[in-house]
Amino acid sequence: MGEMSFVQPVLLHNFATRVLEKLGLTSTEAELVAETLIEADMQGVSTHGIIRLVTYARRVAAGGIKVPTKITVVREGPCTALLDAGAAFGQLAAFRAAQMAVAKAAQCGVGVVGVRNSNHFGRAGYYTEYIARQEMIGICLSNASPRLAPWGGRKPLLGNNPWSIGVPGEPDILFLDMANSIAAAGKIREAAKLGKPIPPGWALDRNGRPTTDPVQALEGILLPFGEYKGYGITLMVGVLTGLLTGGKWDAEIKPVDALDSPQEESHLVMALRITDFTPLEEFKKRISSIVSQIKSSPRADGFSEIFLPGEIERRRRVESEKKGIALSPSTIAVLQNLALELNVSPL
Amino acid sequence: MGEMSFVQPVLLHNFATRVLEKLGLTSTEAELVAETLIEADMQGVSTHGIIRLVTYARRVAAGGIKVPTKITVVREGPCTALLDAGAAFGQLAAFRAAQMAVAKAAQCGVGVVGVRNSNHFGRAGYYTEYIARQEMIGICLSNASPRLAPWGGRKPLLGNNPWSIGVPGEPDILFLDMANSIAAAGKIREAAKLGKPIPPGWALDRNGRPTTDPVQALEGILLPFGEYKGYGITLMVGVLTGLLTGGKWDAEIKPVDALDSPQEESHLVMALRITDFTPLEEFKKRISSIVSQIKSSPRADGFSEIFLPGEIERRRRVESEKKGIALSPSTIAVLQNLALELNVSPL
Repeated sequence: MGEMSFVQPVLLHNFATRVLEKLGLTSTEAELVAETLIEADMQGVSTHGIIRLVTYARRVAAGGIKVPTKITVVREGPCTALLDAGAAFGQLAAFRAAQMAVAKAAQCGVGVVGVRNSNHFGRAGYYTEYIARQEMIGICLSNASPRLAPWGGRKPLLGNNPWSIGVPGEPDILFLDMANSIAAAGKIREAAKLGKPIPPGWALDRNGRPTTDPVQALEGILLPFGEYKGYGITLMVGVLTGLLTGGKWDAEIKPVDALDSPQEESHLVMALRITDFTPLEEFKKRISSIVSQIKSSPRADGFSEIFLPGEIERRRRVESEKKGIALSPSTIAVLQNLALELNVSPL
Repeated sequence: MGEMSFVQPVLLHNFATRVLEKLGLTSTEAELVAETLIEADMQGVSTHGIIRLVTYARRVAAGGIKVPTKITVVREGPCTALLDAGAAFGQLAAFRAAQMAVAKAAQCGVGVVGVRNSNHFGRAGYYTEYIARQEMIGICLSNASPRLAPWGGRKPLLGNNPWSIGVPGEPDILFLDMANSIAAAGKIREAAKLGKPIPPGWALDRNGRPTTDPVQALEGILLPFGEYKGYGITLMVGVLTGLLTGGKWDAEIKPVDALDSPQEESHLVMALRITDFTPLEEFKKRISSIVSQIKSSPRADGFSEIFLPGEIERRRRVESEKKGIALSPSTIAVLQNLALELNVSPL
C-alpha cells in the first residue's frame, strides 16, 4: 500500500475549495462543501472525506449534481419549511436547511425543514454539530440508495439511512451519528478489494442466504443492526425524509455512482431550542456531569475505556490537527490526477 | 400454569376503570389509564397490561403515584411546553403532552411538549398511535430507571429508555415502538421464575462478565441492541427527556417497585403536521404503496413472512377483539384479590 503521508488540514481544505470552485460553485459554497469533507477526514471517517471529490467532479460533469446551485423554497411557515434542492450538492441543501431550522427555532422554539431532490450530503453529524454549536439540539436524517432489505426479506428496498442527534455540552458537544447496517458498505468493498472474507452476520447474498464473501454480499443486502429493530429504524428514517417531503422513497433513490442521475435523496433537519425547557447553562453543566459519570464508571470485562458517542471521532480530530490527515499514496495520486484534469493547482 | 381464560376486552376495561376510580382518579382519567393497559394486553404486550394495576394500586397507597392528579404547565410557548406531572400517573401526563403537541402542531406545524416529575407511562406507542390518528407524525420518548450500562461498562447508569414513532397511513398507521436492550427485563424475570437459563448476549453479571443465569443478569445489566449503537440511542433518549426537561437523569430514576417514591421519569412528545410538507392523502397513499412493496418482496432463507413494524401487535389486537384477552389463572387471582382489597366488583 505504500507509506501514508500526513497532510495539513488547511492544505486539503484549500485544495478541495479550488476543485469545487472550478466545478462552478461560488467560493462560499466551495468552502462549505470542502469543510464537510475535511471534517470527515479529520475525524477518521475517510469514506466521507476528500476522496469523494472525484465522484462529485464526475457527477457534476455528467449532470448528476447541478451547478450552479439552485435551491428553492417550496413551502414555508413560521416553524417549518420544505426545500427543493434542484439536484444541488446535498451538503449545500442540508446546510441551508440547518440554518433555516435554527432561525425558525430561534423564533418558535423549534424548526423543522425538509429537503427533497437532493444528492449525497456527506456525514449527517456535520449538520447536527453545527446546530449544537448554535446552542440548540439538532436532529438530521437522510434517506439513501437501497442497500438493506426489510427484516426477513432479501430485496434491497431500504437505504442505509443515516441519522444524527447533536446536543450542546461542556467541554464539548455530544453527538450520535449512525447508519443502520451492522457494517458499512465501504468495509465490505475494502474486503472485496483485499480478497478477504467478511464476518458472518454482515450480509446476505442475492438469494437471501448468509454469506462471508464480500463480492456476493455487495450483490445482496447489508443486514441491519439489531435485526428487526434496525430495519424499523431505517424504514422510519426513509418515511420521515422521502415520504414526508414528497420526494423519492429509498427504493427509488439512485446510487452515487449513477453519475448522470440526480440521486433524488431527501433530508429532514430539526432544531430545538433548549431554553424553552430548561436554562442553557444548567443543561450544559448536567451534560458535563453525566459525561464524567459515564467516563469514570466501572468497566466490563475486556474493556479498557468507556467512550461517549462521537468521542473517538473527536479524539481523532485532535490528532489530525496536530499530525495532519493521513492519506495513502493512491488517494494522493487520484487527487493530483483530478487537479490535472481540471487544471487547478495540485495538492 | 393452568388453563388460560379469554376475557372480553370491554370487561377488563370496565374492571380497570373501577379499580382506578377507586384509587381516586376521575372517571375520565380512569378510562384513559384503563385504555392504555387494555390496549397493551390486546396487542400481546402483557408486561404493560392490566397486571400493572396491582403495582399502581400499591404505589398510589404508598405515595409513589399522587392522586388526585395535579399536572401543571411550567413554561409554554406557541410551539413548545413543559409540564410538571406532579408525580401523577405517567399515562395522564404523557397523554396531556400528546394532546398539547397536536394542538400546537395544528397551529404551528410542529409541537414539542416535555414532561418531568412523572411516573411509568406504559407503552410509548400508545401516544404516537394517538397522534398518528390525528393525521400527524408522532414521536414519543421516555427515560426509565437504570438497567443498562454505557457500552464497555458494567454499572447500570442508563434506562432501557422507550421510544416510538407513529405515522398515519392506509389501511392503518405505521408505528415503531421499542426499548434499547436486546431482551426486555420481563423476559429475564420470567426465565428466573422458571429456573431456565437465558441466551448468551442478553446480559452481564454485576462483575461485568457475560452470564446466562437470569438471577445474576437481574443483578447486573442488560446489554443494548447493536452494541454501542443501542447504547448511544438510549443515552440520547435520556438526554432528550430527563436533561432537556430539567428532570432527573436515568441513573436517578426510581424503579417502579420503590412504591413510596415518585419515579421522576421525564417524557418528550412531538407532533409534526404532514401538510406542511406534502398533501396528506398523497402521503397516506404512498405509505400504503411502500407497505405492499415490503409485504410482497422476496423473502430471505428461513422466513415465511415479512412484517412491518407494529404489524404483529396489530394482528394480535384483531385476535383479541375476536377471542378476548388471554389471562392466566394466577393473573385472574391477583386481579380478583385486588378487587377484594379495594372493595370493587370483581372481574
